[in-house]
Amino acid sequence: MNTRPRARALGLDDFWHLQPGRYNAITDVSGVHVGHAIVSFGDGALMPGAGPARTGVTVILPHGGNLFRNKVAAAVHTINGYGKACGFEQVRELGEIETPIALTNTLNAWRVADALVDHALALNPDIGIRTSTVNPVVGECNDGYLNDIQGRHVTEGHVRAALESAASGPVVEGAVGAGTGTTCYGWKGGIGSASRVTPASQGGFTLGALVQTNFGRAEDLRVGGVPVGQVLRPPQPPQPERGSVMVVLATDAPLDARQLHRLCVRAGAGLARTGTTVGHGSGDFAIAFSTTRRIAHEGGEQGAHALVAQVPAIVDEGLVLDGLFLAVVEAVEEAVLNSLCAAETTAGRDGHVRYGIPVDEVGQMLKRMVVRREAGGIVDG
Amino acid sequence: MNTRPRARALGLDDFWHLQPGRYNAITDVSGVHVGHAIVSFGDGALMPGAGPARTGVTVILPHGGNLFRNKVAAAVHTINGYGKACGFEQVRELGEIETPIALTNTLNAWRVADALVDHALALNPDIGIRTSTVNPVVGECNDGYLNDIQGRHVTEGHVRAALESAASGPVVEGAVGAGTGTTCYGWKGGIGSASRVTPASQGGFTLGALVQTNFGRAEDLRVGGVPVGQVLRPPQPPQPERGSVMVVLATDAPLDARQLHRLCVRAGAGLARTGTTVGHGSGDFAIAFSTTRRIAHEGGEQGAHALVAQVPAIVDEGLVLDGLFLAVVEAVEEAVLNSLCAAETTAGRDGHVRYGIPVDEVGQMLKRMVVRREAGGIVDG
Amino acid sequence: MNTRPRARALGLDDFWHLQPGRYNAITDVSGVHVGHAIVSFGDGALMPGAGPARTGVTVILPHGGNLFRNKVAAAVHTINGYGKACGFEQVRELGEIETPIALTNTLNAWRVADALVDHALALNPDIGIRTSTVNPVVGECNDGYLNDIQGRHVTEGHVRAALESAASGPVVEGAVGAGTGTTCYGWKGGIGSASRVTPASQGGFTLGALVQTNFGRAEDLRVGGVPVGQVLRPPQPPQPERGSVMVVLATDAPLDARQLHRLCVRAGAGLARTGTTVGHGSGDFAIAFSTTRRIAHEGGEQGAHALVAQVPAIVDEGLVLDGLFLAVVEAVEEAVLNSLCAAETTAGRDGHVRYGIPVDEVGQMLKRMVVRREAGGIVDG
Amino acid sequence: MNTRPRARALGLDDFWHLQPGRYNAITDVSGVHVGHAIVSFGDGALMPGAGPARTGVTVILPHGGNLFRNKVAAAVHTINGYGKACGFEQVRELGEIETPIALTNTLNAWRVADALVDHALALNPDIGIRTSTVNPVVGECNDGYLNDIQGRHVTEGHVRAALESAASGPVVEGAVGAGTGTTCYGWKGGIGSASRVTPASQGGFTLGALVQTNFGRAEDLRVGGVPVGQVLRPPQPPQPERGSVMVVLATDAPLDARQLHRLCVRAGAGLARTGTTVGHGSGDFAIAFSTTRRIAHEGGEQGAHALVAQVPAIVDEGLVLDGLFLAVVEAVEEAVLNSLCAAETTAGRDGHVRYGIPVDEVGQMLKRMVVRREAGGIVDG
Repeated sequence: MNTRPRARALGLDDFWHLQPGRYNAITDVSGVHVGHAIVSFGDGALMPGAGPARTGVTVILPHGGNLFRNKVAAAVHTINGYGKACGFEQVRELGEIETPIALTNTLNAWRVADALVDHALALNPDIGIRTSTVNPVVGECNDGYLNDIQGRHVTEGHVRAALESAASGPVVEGAVGAGTGTTCYGWKGGIGSASRVTPASQGGFTLGALVQTNFGRAEDLRVGGVPVGQVLRPPQPPQPERGSVMVVLATDAPLDARQLHRLCVRAGAGLARTGTTVGHGSGDFAIAFSTTRRIAHEGGEQGAHALVAQVPAIVDEGLVLDGLFLAVVEAVEEAVLNSLCAAETTAGRDGHVRYGIPVDEVGQMLKRMVVRREAGGIVDG
Repeated sequence: MNTRPRARALGLDDFWHLQPGRYNAITDVSGVHVGHAIVSFGDGALMPGAGPARTGVTVILPHGGNLFRNKVAAAVHTINGYGKACGFEQVRELGEIETPIALTNTLNAWRVADALVDHALALNPDIGIRTSTVNPVVGECNDGYLNDIQGRHVTEGHVRAALESAASGPVVEGAVGAGTGTTCYGWKGGIGSASRVTPASQGGFTLGALVQTNFGRAEDLRVGGVPVGQVLRPPQPPQPERGSVMVVLATDAPLDARQLHRLCVRAGAGLARTGTTVGHGSGDFAIAFSTTRRIAHEGGEQGAHALVAQVPAIVDEGLVLDGLFLAVVEAVEEAVLNSLCAAETTAGRDGHVRYGIPVDEVGQMLKRMVVRREAGGIVDG
Repeated sequence: MNTRPRARALGLDDFWHLQPGRYNAITDVSGVHVGHAIVSFGDGALMPGAGPARTGVTVILPHGGNLFRNKVAAAVHTINGYGKACGFEQVRELGEIETPIALTNTLNAWRVADALVDHALALNPDIGIRTSTVNPVVGECNDGYLNDIQGRHVTEGHVRAALESAASGPVVEGAVGAGTGTTCYGWKGGIGSASRVTPASQGGFTLGALVQTNFGRAEDLRVGGVPVGQVLRPPQPPQPERGSVMVVLATDAPLDARQLHRLCVRAGAGLARTGTTVGHGSGDFAIAFSTTRRIAHEGGEQGAHALVAQVPAIVDEGLVLDGLFLAVVEAVEEAVLNSLCAAETTAGRDGHVRYGIPVDEVGQMLKRMVVRREAGGIVDG
Repeated sequence: MNTRPRARALGLDDFWHLQPGRYNAITDVSGVHVGHAIVSFGDGALMPGAGPARTGVTVILPHGGNLFRNKVAAAVHTINGYGKACGFEQVRELGEIETPIALTNTLNAWRVADALVDHALALNPDIGIRTSTVNPVVGECNDGYLNDIQGRHVTEGHVRAALESAASGPVVEGAVGAGTGTTCYGWKGGIGSASRVTPASQGGFTLGALVQTNFGRAEDLRVGGVPVGQVLRPPQPPQPERGSVMVVLATDAPLDARQLHRLCVRAGAGLARTGTTVGHGSGDFAIAFSTTRRIAHEGGEQGAHALVAQVPAIVDEGLVLDGLFLAVVEAVEEAVLNSLCAAETTAGRDGHVRYGIPVDEVGQMLKRMVVRREAGGIVDG
């Protein structure tokens, strides 16, 4: 069991403006489920195709029902397109997601997409026969420093296991699922999550973020603004970034696809706060969906006879969007830090090691520079 | 008064699948107004800045009210971005239009945009003081073959005149307004319009198109599919295309910005049917709006307190969109042909002449090859 | 052996402006190879997962060498994003293609992408270990009317077979490879190809197109501009379009990614000439590459030391691009018609049949309306 | 004369990784010129159209020659499209800039664009007559809190004055030119600039940034990572953001348009480091150009005969781009801080005041938390 503290406990309680939800996780958005499968076996020298494996899959379900029949409004955004994300063209065109979102390692992306198809076919035997086909959405990061990435060890069985284990409630973070083998700012990265609730005057909506972190150079890391990376370095020579980061955003605000895209853009600002310069080799993507903006497959029971319906909507010019934008930036920043704090030291192929960031040291650094809003002034720790 | 026949009268009655609206014009979409101002003076040698002028402005109003207070959902699409269209960034971001759309000549684009600002300020004295600024939308074509384009002869007064004259009902086509000096497929081009009504089973919506045509090489022209341009050529040596075409689409279907963008993409197919290869120098843009998807400025009377509202919407998967897509392609194709048929021979600077296409000859060519759906077979004319 | 005539032989010899290359195929671009594998077995009632299969895979190789080591400049363009194309994000970001392009059926897209990874790994064992990962590019169409699409019957072996059989020279068209089970304008569709050579004054470059056709409604078909679809209909009730079309463009002009994207946009105009209204359900995509604009992996032998190199380039404003734009429109139009002409009647699952278009009837229709440039005038056939 | 310190002098000398150029300004990129014109008159109550004016224009020239004849490769990027930027469509299509870039106030954007046309016409009397038209590039921010923005007080004369005064060397920062009336993080904003030189191993290229800052909420400001805004607030109630920020990037690396777009994306990360959440009302745009990647108008002297030329190019995969990406993030971050440090308290219409940020207080806050890389450890100030 992971006993490492989450980022907030390092002295960042007062750092952000908005309050998190109950679990401070994407699952605070009602109905969202998250599941992981870890694929970890073997040690020692890399035998391409045979291991060692340090990888996995993480799935995010916008709701617990049949997503193909009951799609959710969605958007995608490419910050740096050096990546193999699947399903983005159709999300852009139709503004909807109709499968779980899966995250995995780079070379496994297509097998995992194919496994999502299996899952959709099992639930909807009419796909491709009496109705349209299905568009799986997959993100990925390159975990090849620790993992036998050529082996594509994440199978249909692992995807099914992750889907079956998906649950609401706390999200397991760190070196799990799609984060089993990833690297973030030179340290062990992984899965992180966080959430925010906007003030009642701005709708009282919940916004959750989940990230798969595999990006950044050690020297660039900023924690709560503090340039920790300028002095705290992993016991390894610097390596060229072959990173990536996937951001998944969920909200219960009834946004349409255009507005969800606006949320995705703000994910980039959340990432940037942690110090990244968005390296050439880092495939950085964001996906956002609304759990309350549903689209029934083929218009639902009314089918083609459905002409005009009434749907819930939010105006851009009110205060709601600005509240959600702040929520995105804060939740993404905290989710990245959570992924770092939770991830324990992991050894992989060829004796490669990624070290868990020393949370105590980080905490002490923050304490010395802590900014407290108490008494309206900055107080030295 | 223009006594030239519209394209349909040349033998194309049975050519299209869908029926036009009452006027076969963009004004068949209830509430849409169109106005023109012609700026034409001088003859003979070009005196840069002094004439001769063969230009003008055409305005399209999504409704007759205060557009800044009562915006319409909208989208833009760039087919070939060699042009100076104004206002596109904000339409993309917010999915709305808040001024009339104005079309003019290339170098006049910014003065006309500025005149739209004048118009908005007059109606809304709080702009930029107690509320946000305003985003004018302008399209343009290069009419410099006939017109003293350096002169930027379209003034704020002309824009105001066009706005004041804007009306529903029939649209004056040909060498008027922003089409006064344009060239299309080597012939005199100009303003054209057309409309379609989708079948009741597909919603019975109206879709209107208005085009400012200034594109295409004579040898590429196709009328009703017939490659008329292979034999019918203007009495002039071929010239390199410095063209452009602006397409404005209106509909009373309550589409959102994403769906309106899908309409815009189909405008390109309508243009292509007339033979264009979308030359390097042709700035080809489409703008679409929905008259029934309104957005109140700052959330209207409820202002910032407006959180969630119910809005009318259409599902992509039903039959409605496919009906509208067909309507766009047909209406744009016919609007281009209408612009050609209506435009009379026009002489401009330096003795330059653009000839009105000989409609009788075109009609005879079509007759010899007419395709009739009578009796389920093709009948030689 | 296919004895059906190509489209040009139906009376369209004089229809286009530019001359085709030797084979009138994408392989006229020096170095381009095309290969097919047909997957066809079983008859009668659909047994999901077990057949009947009427599908396959087509591969296009920009050159015969190691594409991962020696990439080509490339671009992609989404006309209507209702599709599952793979690899587009990275092509957009980096402007290059580093694997063969594969076309297949919709639900097989990811398995075929994974097979391209296998192929790349076999040639480049350092992928994901000592160098970056690889980005396979796959397009697809939904052939589920004839094919057991849930079965995903195209395996890694079929992809390998297609790659091994890939050759320069004539391209087999019609119901082969990825076109084995597709439908176009209500008739049997498939693979088609064509090419154009631009005049010496415009560079004398070769442009080739290959299409996988699975789009359009029977009533919309236009052949050489003639609205054949208004009278010629397949002996079947009309069906809602669940189509798609993939366009691959190759050129030996040294264009960069931005310019190649401009070519892709013109592919839409070529498709539109054949009558399509780009239906909601039609996933329409274009991919273009330049065989003479190469990018060495990691800067080639110089590696990271490679700073500034000299590369061949073409200015947009000259005549070269306009020549290539015309070539794209013509080649795509003809390639679609070639796919129709070549495809023979095919029966598939559940007794479903797609009929080969009756080329003689089409030829007669064209003859009655033929437009000849002889004597500078239109002559009745 | 401005005697306020630049940001670096507040204790941030060791904060960044890369070294600035000689002037730590965009003019460190050889050939780049910057000019300002301030338009400031009147006091007291707003008389719409008559003042008070607190605005201006800033121009950035990629080189000192005729930009229309000798264009530079360029790209634009929209972070949040709530703005009226001019010229972006054509820059996207052609990948080049052919006029100076001008920054001004929102409602003045089109008059300033028109003034750039005047400037181009004066230098190139053939525009629109014997050659193509011209595409002015303008960015803007809403300075209406201090300025009579309805008055559009920046005239053609001011633009000409700014162009005539444009020079290399140090850039005047703060409340000048287009920054005369802007607001940043609740404080007086304005013009800021900074530059970086990449290491010789990464090409030794220079990257310069210039920003017009008018964005952000006071509570979000971070200086060198320190969340200064949590305690340091202007003596005014918080106001809803009606901001915007324009970023202009210059480099002497011979990047093409696609690569320059990649630079633009990183500008967003630089802005985010200063704390912004990219508010709904903030129009945030980036423009980048390369001074060494030139495009001769119409192919230059060779004209249409120019077919294939050799141009300098940089591979994406080497180290050059990553160096430039870091340079962008750092230079943009510092340029924003420079705009804040330089801007002095400014009073405008209706007694509205924007206070210059108290640089001493900021300096003290930074000192208490300064991170020094001396001795490899963090040292308390």
